[in-house]
Amino acid sequence: MTDRGVPASYASNSFAIAIEWAHCDPAGIVWNPRFFEFFDTGAWRLFETVLGVPRAELNKRYGLIGIAVVEAGANFMIPLKFGDIAELETTLTEFGRSSFALRYRVHRDGRLALEGQERRVWAAAHPDDPLRLRALPIPPEVIDAFRV
Amino acid sequence: MTDRGVPASYASNSFAIAIEWAHCDPAGIVWNPRFFEFFDTGAWRLFETVLGVPRAELNKRYGLIGIAVVEAGANFMIPLKFGDIAELETTLTEFGRSSFALRYRVHRDGRLALEGQERRVWAAAHPDDPLRLRALPIPPEVIDAFRV
Amino acid sequence: MTDRGVPASYASNSFAIAIEWAHCDPAGIVWNPRFFEFFDTGAWRLFETVLGVPRAELNKRYGLIGIAVVEAGANFMIPLKFGDIAELETTLTEFGRSSFALRYRVHRDGRLALEGQERRVWAAAHPDDPLRLRALPIPPEVIDAFRV
Amino acid sequence: MTDRGVPASYASNSFAIAIEWAHCDPAGIVWNPRFFEFFDTGAWRLFETVLGVPRAELNKRYGLIGIAVVEAGANFMIPLKFGDIAELETTLTEFGRSSFALRYRVHRDGRLALEGQERRVWAAAHPDDPLRLRALPIPPEVIDAFRV
Repeated sequence: MTDRGVPASYASNSFAIAIEWAHCDPAGIVWNPRFFEFFDTGAWRLFETVLGVPRAELNKRYGLIGIAVVEAGANFMIPLKFGDIAELETTLTEFGRSSFALRYRVHRDGRLALEGQERRVWAAAHPDDPLRLRALPIPPEVIDAFRV
Repeated sequence: MTDRGVPASYASNSFAIAIEWAHCDPAGIVWNPRFFEFFDTGAWRLFETVLGVPRAELNKRYGLIGIAVVEAGANFMIPLKFGDIAELETTLTEFGRSSFALRYRVHRDGRLALEGQERRVWAAAHPDDPLRLRALPIPPEVIDAFRV
Repeated sequence: MTDRGVPASYASNSFAIAIEWAHCDPAGIVWNPRFFEFFDTGAWRLFETVLGVPRAELNKRYGLIGIAVVEAGANFMIPLKFGDIAELETTLTEFGRSSFALRYRVHRDGRLALEGQERRVWAAAHPDDPLRLRALPIPPEVIDAFRV
Repeated sequence: MTDRGVPASYASNSFAIAIEWAHCDPAGIVWNPRFFEFFDTGAWRLFETVLGVPRAELNKRYGLIGIAVVEAGANFMIPLKFGDIAELETTLTEFGRSSFALRYRVHRDGRLALEGQERRVWAAAHPDDPLRLRALPIPPEVIDAFRV
């Protein structure tokens, strides 16, 4: 929310995902963990696009170990199957002090097949233990870059 | 809920998961889609244990194409890392007419590292299209077997 | 080999692969099983392109359960990492009676990063057991379609 | 080979792998890249067992970025399927100056289902680029620990 209670609007991007044999389970449909993989790719690519920093350099640029998922969820309406071409839309929906929320929508043939959401933390390595995460404040210029 | 509004209690089971290099991402911690993979294994093994039917025969036994995930979510509190031994507890929390809910808890060293939940459908292939799913009523004997 | 000992030449195709966080391991480079996933996608897409049959319909069209891998191998020369754009070239190198061989080459920035090969079987379900595979003769029109 | 041309014999270890829904493809059998995942786990666990160093600490202990695969291959004889319990045997077969070879055998019900091999490099990060690998000489005490 902005100061005056109007929700801010943030950037989104979209790309196509071709569903491969690799993604499907014995029921012949995409196995659900693969969607969380697609979401992950959507998140990194959105940051790359909006910030203009190659996604492989985002961590180094901002002193991060990653953009760590602390909450994830999805609702699956229409199964996707081998050979489908889906469209993944990734939208940044909210910024907190050191975390942010993302919404994912996957359409196929113009119909919403599934919808997901995540909360991620702007995470550095903890000084005492490189595998503990420490949430950092998100730089204001990052948030500004996402405003649309 | 039972007739008198008392929530029914259903079976759960637990098994250990060894965290491998295979599960970890460039941040050195388990990459979140892997947890949805672990949940999937937890679900099948719980049905196998409770129903006494080898998990590879559950579909054939009940005329299913699978136990299809329609909602999934998780909260990640403590990152897991290479070499950790975690305990995954899978609990059936609710039965609907043709769907059911599961709760997953992953502990490491006695601390809750993450918690997940899913809703799954007792799903047959649709007669018109083998890749469309059709929800079937869950047989009463299946529900009875889960009561504890 | 053809009748006169001249090796036949068969079709190939190429597509780009964007390397994602999802593909990388704690060393920050692509984890080797991912390349076998890419190879699998290369194989299906090559058949789709050459035969003009959507890859999801190849099995039904030819009475197959799949194009099952019986041998696979790869040599890794240059590690790929997050953000790389690689080019996967898939070439059908040899047809046997009921199996065929594929070669995979992955280039990045014009340099060969890795090379793989597979032998796959034109596989139907065994009549006695749907999970046993039965090698079928590859139809001559399939082989003809691959000749270049 | 030892000085006198007698091949040295090195340690192996074995563990069970339960085949899950997660591992299987639309043909209902284990999708081949999963076996390379199993091999990877076999390699790390063998080093842990033989060297007595937790596998998550091997890299730090020896100044490595990993034990990077430079060659991998497998022959698949019998498909594995959901619910199978397989036994993975990992054997160190050869030490070079800075690389080593591993052999993997997967049995089910006493029959050899598949066999794999890898060559891996004792790899540190390159001083000029943390994502380039630099092969280090394998310490003699590591090789000694593997002799049986």
